[in-house]
Amino acid sequence: MNTGMTRFEFWLSIGSTYSFLTVHRINDCAAAAGIDVRWRPFSVRALMQEMNNLPFVGKPAKENYMWRDLQRRAERLGIPLQVPVAYPLEHFDRANRVAVLASREGWCENYVRSAYRYWMLEGLPAGDEPNLLACCSDLDQSFERVIKAAETEDIDAAYRDATATARELGIFGSPSFVVNGDELFWGDDRLEDGIAYWQRLENERLV
Amino acid sequence: MNTGMTRFEFWLSIGSTYSFLTVHRINDCAAAAGIDVRWRPFSVRALMQEMNNLPFVGKPAKENYMWRDLQRRAERLGIPLQVPVAYPLEHFDRANRVAVLASREGWCENYVRSAYRYWMLEGLPAGDEPNLLACCSDLDQSFERVIKAAETEDIDAAYRDATATARELGIFGSPSFVVNGDELFWGDDRLEDGIAYWQRLENERLV
Repeated sequence: MNTGMTRFEFWLSIGSTYSFLTVHRINDCAAAAGIDVRWRPFSVRALMQEMNNLPFVGKPAKENYMWRDLQRRAERLGIPLQVPVAYPLEHFDRANRVAVLASREGWCENYVRSAYRYWMLEGLPAGDEPNLLACCSDLDQSFERVIKAAETEDIDAAYRDATATARELGIFGSPSFVVNGDELFWGDDRLEDGIAYWQRLENERLV
Repeated sequence: MNTGMTRFEFWLSIGSTYSFLTVHRINDCAAAAGIDVRWRPFSVRALMQEMNNLPFVGKPAKENYMWRDLQRRAERLGIPLQVPVAYPLEHFDRANRVAVLASREGWCENYVRSAYRYWMLEGLPAGDEPNLLACCSDLDQSFERVIKAAETEDIDAAYRDATATARELGIFGSPSFVVNGDELFWGDDRLEDGIAYWQRLENERLV
C-alpha cells in the first residue's frame, strides 16, 4: 500500500556555521531529487550542552580549521561568505525562536536564509536586533510584532518541544537530516548521503 | 624555478575509526591524480587529550551515530567492514609505534592496512598481540623483533617528534591531509578536497 512519500526533515539551528552551506543549497539539491524538505528549527545548543559536546570552546586549532574549511567548502559550492564572523551567537535562542514562529506562519525558510546572509556576509550576528530588523524588512514582517511573539511562552514551548523531538531522534548537531523518521545524517557534507538514502527508500516503496 | 612536486602528507593514527576508510582508498585516489602520498603516523590521542577534544567519551548518541555513519560510508565506497568493534584501542600507542618503526623500514602502508583489516573485519584490536602476530606473519616480519624494536626509546622519540610536528601543523584529528606543508584537511570526507587543492597548486607551479 502506498502510504505517502518518504519523509525528509532538515533539523537546523541558526548559529551553526556549517549549516549556512546547507541553508543555501538544500532546497535546490532536494528538488533535483524530487524531495520536499521539511525545515525543523530546534536548539542544538541545549543538546550539545547537556552532552558536554563542545567542539570549539577552548580548542583554537579546531576553530581556526573550521573557518578555513568552511571558506573552502563555500568556495567549492559557489556560496559567497565573509568569515570569520562573531561566534558563538549571543542571541542564539532568539534567532531560533523567531525561526519557530516563522515556521508556524510559513516564512521560516526565507527568514533563515536572510538571517544567515546578514550574519555571514554582512557581519550582523543572527538574533541581534540589526539582523532581525533587516530580515523583517526584507520579508515584510513587523519587527515589533515578531520580537514580541518570539518571546511568548507559546513559542518557547514549541521550541522546547522541537528540541525534545530532536533529542529522541538521536540528534546531536546541526545540520542534521532525518529520513523516514529514523535514519540520521549529520553535517552539510552528508546531505548527498541523506538524499541517496531517501531515493533508495522511495524506490523500494514504489516497487 | 621548478622546485619539485607539491607535497601531500597523510597524517594518521591507527585507532581512529574513519581513518580505516582513508587507509583503504587513499593510494588509489591519489595515484589517479598523480600524487605520491607520504604516510605519517603520529599520536592523535596525545593531541586530543591535551585539547580536551574527546568526541565520543560520554556521548553515546554521537558514538552510535559514528558507527552507523562509518558503516554507510564504507558501503558507499565499497569497503567491507564489521562494526562496531572494540573501541577505543587499549594498545593504541603500541599499534602506532609499530607504524613508526615500519615507516622507517618501508613497510608502514602494508602494516597499517593489515592492522585495520584485522581490527575492522576480524575483530582483533590493533596493537593487541593477536593483531600484531597476524600482521607480522602476513608481512614476513619477526613478531619478537618488531615488538621489541617498537618499545625502544629511539622509536618512542620518533613517535613523539612526529606528534610534535603534527601539533605545529595545527592537526587535531585523524585522518588529516597536509598539502604543501601548510594547508590542512581533516577527515576522510575531505580527501577529495585535499586532492583538488593539491592539483590546483601543482597546476600553478607548472604554469
